[in-house]
Parts: sequence; C-alpha cells; structure tokens
Amino acid sequence: MVLKEIAEMIKSWDNILVVCHKSPDGDAFGSSVALISALQSMGKKVGFKCADPVSKRYAFLFEGVTIDEIEPEKIITVDVADKKLLGSLQDELVGKIDLAIDHHASHENFAKIDYVEDTSASNAEIIYQLIKELGVDMNMTMATALYTGVSTDTGCFKYQNTTPRTHKIAAELMELGVDAAEINFHLLDQKSRQQVQTEILALSTMNYFYDDKIAMISVTREMIEELGIVDEDLDMLSSRPREIEDVLVGITLKEKEGGYFKASVRTNNGANASEICAALGGGGHPGAAGCEIHESELARAQQAIISAASNYLKKHGIEA
Amino acid sequence: MVLKEIAEMIKSWDNILVVCHKSPDGDAFGSSVALISALQSMGKKVGFKCADPVSKRYAFLFEGVTIDEIEPEKIITVDVADKKLLGSLQDELVGKIDLAIDHHASHENFAKIDYVEDTSASNAEIIYQLIKELGVDMNMTMATALYTGVSTDTGCFKYQNTTPRTHKIAAELMELGVDAAEINFHLLDQKSRQQVQTEILALSTMNYFYDDKIAMISVTREMIEELGIVDEDLDMLSSRPREIEDVLVGITLKEKEGGYFKASVRTNNGANASEICAALGGGGHPGAAGCEIHESELARAQQAIISAASNYLKKHGIEA
Repeated sequence: MVLKEIAEMIKSWDNILVVCHKSPDGDAFGSSVALISALQSMGKKVGFKCADPVSKRYAFLFEGVTIDEIEPEKIITVDVADKKLLGSLQDELVGKIDLAIDHHASHENFAKIDYVEDTSASNAEIIYQLIKELGVDMNMTMATALYTGVSTDTGCFKYQNTTPRTHKIAAELMELGVDAAEINFHLLDQKSRQQVQTEILALSTMNYFYDDKIAMISVTREMIEELGIVDEDLDMLSSRPREIEDVLVGITLKEKEGGYFKASVRTNNGANASEICAALGGGGHPGAAGCEIHESELARAQQAIISAASNYLKKHGIEA
Repeated sequence: MVLKEIAEMIKSWDNILVVCHKSPDGDAFGSSVALISALQSMGKKVGFKCADPVSKRYAFLFEGVTIDEIEPEKIITVDVADKKLLGSLQDELVGKIDLAIDHHASHENFAKIDYVEDTSASNAEIIYQLIKELGVDMNMTMATALYTGVSTDTGCFKYQNTTPRTHKIAAELMELGVDAAEINFHLLDQKSRQQVQTEILALSTMNYFYDDKIAMISVTREMIEELGIVDEDLDMLSSRPREIEDVLVGITLKEKEGGYFKASVRTNNGANASEICAALGGGGHPGAAGCEIHESELARAQQAIISAASNYLKKHGIEA
C-alpha cells in the first residue's frame, strides 16, 4: 500500500488507539502526538498508550492534545520496529494491531498492515507526509511534535540518515512558527549539574579494545545512585565513544535496575551496529542499535558486547 | 547596495584578494573557499590571505581550489566584523578594502562598501545568494565549503540564528551531493583521545557564580601543555557552560601563549554576550561573543570576566 491509500483507509476509522515503543524517544512521542492531533482535528476520538510514562523531558509535546478515553476499534503503532518493543503492552496488543507505521530497516512485521519507509530519517517524516495526505491543516502541536521527531532522530540534522527532504520539512515546520532552537536546546544540549558530573565520571570509564577500534563507556547502578540521576540522564552518553578518532564501534554499557545491562552501540565507516546487537538478540539501525545483556556482573556484560563487536569486525576482515 | 548590484560590480573585477578573519572558523574558511572557487570559475585570478594558517581541521575545504599568485586590484573580506579581526594583516590591508561581506550585527564599517546581512545565520548564506546572483554553476567545492559555513555557524542547525532559509540552502547543497554527515562528524563530533581527556579536565574546573546563573570553565597553559593539545582543541568547550540548567551566562576562559586570556561567552534567555564582551573591548553576536583579557594571572582574568557578566545581569534587573 502507498501512503495515499493508508490515508484513505484511516479516514474511515474512528476510536483509534495510537501506540509507541517502550523507552520512548523524541521521535516515538513526536510521531504519536502529531498523529493524535491530526486525527482529532478530523473529529475522531483518539487514545494513546505506551509501556512507559511521559517523562518531564517530553511533557511539552503533550500540552496541545487531550487523550480521549476510548474503547479502541483500530490500533496504530508508530516507530515500533518489533512487537517486543511494545514492552509490557505486548500481551494486550499483539494480534490486534491494524497498522504499524515505521522507518526501521530492521522492522519485523507484526500488524495487519505494516507500512515501512526505511529511507525516512525519522518516523515523524512519514507522519508529516501522512498528515498532508489526510488533508489536515498543520497546527502548532503537530508542527512542534514533528520537528521534535525529525530533529532528535537525526542528531539535529547531523547523522547520515538526514536527507534533503529532512531539511525541507524542517524549513516548513519553522515557517509555521516552531521554536526550533528552544526544542533543540531543551532536548539535545541542556544538562543538569548532575548530568555534567555524570559525563565526567562516565568519560573517565572509557576503555579501548581491539587495537582501539572499539571504545566503551560503562555505567553501573552504583554510579547512577551515587550521582542521583535517572536512566534517561544517560541517553546523551551513547554517541560519545564513537566520536573518538579511529573508533569504529562505540559502546555505552548501562546497568539497569533488576540486575542486567543495556548496551547502546554506535558505529562509524559502515560498521553495522544492528548486526552487532543482533548477535545478542537486539537490533536497530545500521549506525545505531541496542541490546539487553542478561548478566549480573559488569565484567561478564562487558565481555559479551566486546566479543560481539570484535567478532563482527573480524568477520568483516578488520583485524585488531 | 543590494546583493544583485554587488554581484554586478564584482563581475567587472579581476585579480581579487579574498581575506577572512584571524582564528578562522568553518564559516570564515567556507565563505572564502566558495567565493574563491566561484570567482575563479568566472575566469578571474583570485588570491587568499588570512592572519592564521589553514589548519589540518579545515584543509579539506581547500582541496578543490588553487590560490592564484596575484597583485591585488580588488580586496574582499568575508565574515570580518571589525578591522581588528584582520589580525596581523591589519596594517597591510586597512584603507584598501573594496568590499566587506559580513553577517555580524556588530559589524563596524571599514571597507569602501560594507555589505552586511545580520539576519543571515552564517556568512556562507550570503555567499550562497551571491553565487546565485553571479550566475555561477555551483560545483562540489563551493557546495562543500558553503555547507561547512552554514552548518558550523548554526551549531548544525541547532542555534537561534537558524532560519527556514538555512534549511532550504542545506537541502539544495545536499542535493548537489555534499556529504553532510561526514563534514558534521569531522568538524562537530569527532575528537581525539586527548580532547576527551581535555573535556574531562575542563568540565572538572566548572565553577558557578551569581546564584549559579554564571558558569565558567578555566583552562590554563599548564593544562594545555600537560594534555599535549593545541588551542583549537578547546573550541568545542565554549558551548558547555551555557548548557547547564539555570545558567544565563556560560564562560570558557582560556590562557593563551604570551600571557593573556581569551574568554568565550555564550548566553541563554536573551542575555547579550556581545554586550558583556564589549565591556572588556570584545564583541560578537548576541548569543556568542568573545574578548581578550590582558591579565597574566588566572584569578585576575576570572575576576574581570565574572565582573563583566555580573554587572550585565545586575544592570538588566537580574539579581544574584
């Protein structure tokens, strides 16, 4: 189905539940809010669910929408690459999802209709096009939510996934009055004093492996508790190891509550983060992916992800 | 004069010397290279001068141009806000400059014709329009140089100065084939291991003043020499203090060779960095400015810039 047909189909729907992935980011929430607002402006009742609550960081996106209490007739997921990413909503929703709108190349079909555009830098770019196809007038709630998705998923137009279309959409959203600098500052740059302390401590844990082609930051629960931060405060660290000269695979390993670890992998020069994470049951994009490592000891978790990254490099002819 | 008239005037010129400001950044070099390449593609001989050499960081911009050896008939400065910023070229050039093309609101006229567009996020945006007016076909050298100027002067489309036009120009330059992600990674994200060490050390010097509304990083020659870095490695620190929650004025104080200090000031919520730096003989943009402090002791230099920032806040009704 092309997007025009998706739009025609949605026009006949009502009492729609919009769902995004667990550990939601700017694109997940941005795509959700823009779609909810667009559908509501067409007179439809729209609910929303996510396995995780809306954090303080993203609360501004939801200011312009009121979520309806509904008995869902139709369910749409946005930015969900795999049913596992529905988190705690998986049992309730799987098998009932009418439409999945996603931009991940690693998307595993789980809906009656899976609409995937993997050339789209953000899911918000697809929602932007969909809103055009729906014939809805873009309001500030939609524009702000879409800009947030577009900007955060491209590292503010910095990453390889950014296309001319990404910039054209940003131009149009700014022309509508979106305060781009404020959104970017709030989501990408502004840090608490604890986050600066976190950065100092986390950067100090940087270790190098495989002839310095792999760099890794490790953050333990003890560090997190000592610093008085929440897991979300660590998000900004993920890009740091891969930024170091000569590094091909950058890893941020974070201990989670419940005695396991999460690895965020970022790559350079075409190394495939998604493939590295797939070896440990995870996935994502070629340049940015993640996985969970169910080990309770830091050393064993480190060993697991370093092995996966080393094996990947070796397999692709890159020697240590 | 409007830009169309500037272009008409330039069409009749030859043996042109292009000059940018000392301590050149991506916009200074990017604007220079794009203009040189455009003028040369019109069959003109074009020279280039800057008080500082082209560093390794920006060498890629100059790969597509060959600077001509000329006896200058005409001199054009790009991105030079004040004749003082010509640095060591000041004596040689002042009084002989035919055209200054600049985007600084603080521009002090010093040329026969000063063409200033202070709504332009980067000087490269003006050069982009000028190249259109000159009727020159944009080649990859020009496109790469312009993208570099546009991206670096807006913090990769993140800062308040970014406009819809900025994004539209970026879209067009990417359509021509500019490898935006590579440029952004090289200039904005990639760091050496020493730079990461520098960051850890510099962030550890963060101090707070005036009820935490002023934050300051201080880097001494001793630290620079111990880390084995060059002054340019410190550029990426300038934005860090202002990124901290509740900070209105962020300052990075760097000791320079020759026993003085340079302060880079970045502001939030409309506080005027240019006004703060003007009190110490410096200048720049409202959100980003700088000044030299001719004190040999760190404590006295710190006191000078903290006083200037405190006085500014007090004068504008913001109490400690």
